[in-house]
Amino acid sequence: MARVLEIRKNVLAKNDEIARENREFFRSRGLTALNFVSSPGAGKTSLLVRTINDMKTGVKFAVIEGDQQTDNDAKKIEQTGAPVIQINTVSSCHLDADMVKKSLGSLDMDGAKYLFIENVGNLVCPASYDLGEMMKVAVMSVTEGEDKPVKYPKMFRVSSALVITKTDLLPYLDFDVKMAVDYALKVNPAIRVFKVSVKNGDGLADWYKFLLTLSDAAGR
Amino acid sequence: MARVLEIRKNVLAKNDEIARENREFFRSRGLTALNFVSSPGAGKTSLLVRTINDMKTGVKFAVIEGDQQTDNDAKKIEQTGAPVIQINTVSSCHLDADMVKKSLGSLDMDGAKYLFIENVGNLVCPASYDLGEMMKVAVMSVTEGEDKPVKYPKMFRVSSALVITKTDLLPYLDFDVKMAVDYALKVNPAIRVFKVSVKNGDGLADWYKFLLTLSDAAGR
Repeated sequence: MARVLEIRKNVLAKNDEIARENREFFRSRGLTALNFVSSPGAGKTSLLVRTINDMKTGVKFAVIEGDQQTDNDAKKIEQTGAPVIQINTVSSCHLDADMVKKSLGSLDMDGAKYLFIENVGNLVCPASYDLGEMMKVAVMSVTEGEDKPVKYPKMFRVSSALVITKTDLLPYLDFDVKMAVDYALKVNPAIRVFKVSVKNGDGLADWYKFLLTLSDAAGR
Repeated sequence: MARVLEIRKNVLAKNDEIARENREFFRSRGLTALNFVSSPGAGKTSLLVRTINDMKTGVKFAVIEGDQQTDNDAKKIEQTGAPVIQINTVSSCHLDADMVKKSLGSLDMDGAKYLFIENVGNLVCPASYDLGEMMKVAVMSVTEGEDKPVKYPKMFRVSSALVITKTDLLPYLDFDVKMAVDYALKVNPAIRVFKVSVKNGDGLADWYKFLLTLSDAAGR
């Protein structure tokens, strides 16, 4: 086991080195790079599509899509008009900094203010891999259990924001929003929480305001 | 990379060896061992709780719960009266055969017909690890995207059954059940599909009938 662990440590050290280069690259361009993490089906792609459509007047976005297979998500993003590149990780359960670095060359980021990186849907692996992002944004839907933050504490600890999605479904569920928020704050007292419905638009204004403050900070 | 791959191969070979021992153990007891896999929040625990409650008259169940952290799920299972053991994988994104083997000693399986193993919520890692189960059962909720089977093809290829859950929410969603089933059959033409609502009971009768045929086969 020790040998496996040592190699794993080296893999992570190498990843962190490339992540630092990515971060420097993003910073030099005043780009707000966000790494979206969640379980599969939490609604990351829908959140990104609506966010881009609602904010795109005068603001440019670029998107990196990570999936084990298919370019379905990239196709959805394409319809917003934002430049997008799809990474298929095939056997890997997460994006890594090198995949992101390699894809940057093929992505039109001219004048872009935001780079949205949608990670593979997975609440374990992506927590360990820095991609060079400004922050990780965890996405969790009200159709999941309230206790996801305590069941996958590392993911919610390394995320700076949490977007709780699909709130339009709350009338049909027993989901306790306060309990979910309390669990998230328990593992990460500093996490910023947003409750949104991409379908009816509830709560999106606060989320967009938050994105604007991030971009102001990145542009300085 | 070659060195990492080689070690990974050895890890998997060792896992398969222990999985074979587990399988032999289950077979010798006429035990139907099922490995439930899904993304986090698909409703595995609720499905197991309701299945046990509905079938437990005269039938004994035992349950192994896998989670990165917490024993929340084991506590829910406990309320059914079925013996349960919780494995916390901490940093690992899946159960492995050795974790299952080690937990068998502490689990009361006397007279049990079914062993339900609830894997860590993850559509990538658990696909590669045989635990010695009779079959993997993939669980997917109608609140996820229809294209999960093609995005995570390996998981749906190694699963012999697919339970589509939370069908009571269909009136409030744009989820296309036929499309989801077609995607699943595309990656695995032999997969058996069940559509259920644990909340209102729709479709559960077929699922229970399927479980009974499995147990008949295991008891022979």
